[in-house]
Amino acid sequence: MGLLTKNIETLDDAFVHVLQTTYYAEKQITKALPKMIDKATSPELKQGFETHVRETENHAHRLEQVFRMQGTEPQEATCPAIDGIIKAGNSMAGDIADRHVLDAALASAAQMVEHYEIAQYGTLIAWARQMGREDCAKVLAETLGEEKATDEKLTRLAESRINRSAKHQAA
Amino acid sequence: MGLLTKNIETLDDAFVHVLQTTYYAEKQITKALPKMIDKATSPELKQGFETHVRETENHAHRLEQVFRMQGTEPQEATCPAIDGIIKAGNSMAGDIADRHVLDAALASAAQMVEHYEIAQYGTLIAWARQMGREDCAKVLAETLGEEKATDEKLTRLAESRINRSAKHQAA
Repeated sequence: MGLLTKNIETLDDAFVHVLQTTYYAEKQITKALPKMIDKATSPELKQGFETHVRETENHAHRLEQVFRMQGTEPQEATCPAIDGIIKAGNSMAGDIADRHVLDAALASAAQMVEHYEIAQYGTLIAWARQMGREDCAKVLAETLGEEKATDEKLTRLAESRINRSAKHQAA
Repeated sequence: MGLLTKNIETLDDAFVHVLQTTYYAEKQITKALPKMIDKATSPELKQGFETHVRETENHAHRLEQVFRMQGTEPQEATCPAIDGIIKAGNSMAGDIADRHVLDAALASAAQMVEHYEIAQYGTLIAWARQMGREDCAKVLAETLGEEKATDEKLTRLAESRINRSAKHQAA
């Protein structure tokens, strides 16, 4: 797309496009999380990722609901941003020799994913409101609240335990 | 890296690695912003991006300072996350026919970049504190504060003007 035709003409079109890239992202995150669970050592981090798999599946279902409210079928559109974020996390994880430092890097990679989602849902909600679709905004805001809560949980877990273990990994 | 040797052994090594990817990201953002300025129609958005070019250059200088405080020379490490985020923004912009909808998408793409940086600087600050380097954390926190302020400015600008123009682009 983009080379021959410019197919986004209205804010409604742009909204559906971002719905599609976010839907793709949720599916990619669902695939990436089990690998992060395998790599994590900290039981709390493993458990946090496991909870987030179920949340992410639910976020995809909510997006399907918004697609239908918008009168269109759920469809994925490749998003180079989430692909790059997942690739960066895997690349750094592959370079780490110590399991506690790996936990710190996995928590950090997960927070990058959360911030991607906070930005995407923030845009979707603002555009839905501008389009007079408070009904869509409300569904999307439930997910945004959960993404922000996950980011805060990861910060607390990293600061209280994971980074401390990473610093003292030689002990 | 990563295929033959795992060269991140300590939290200090991981910290330097994230400094390097963030340094690379600031340089890529400095290159991407002038193209966004060219594409933007809204004078406020253009001006916001222009201010952010100068801030971004300053963020790169602060990173150079932290590299030296950490006893190492400034060096870039490719970050697939920022590459993907910039690519996603360009790809969506290339698909948009209307200049007001394009402004809304550019503001949204810039907020994605801000969230990438909020996540990176958040990690760097938490790790610096864990390493007992409050001096490094303090320098990095100045940048984090500016990234958060830019994100909030973009939200206000989008909600007060840009999205409204995008909605009424046919008028």
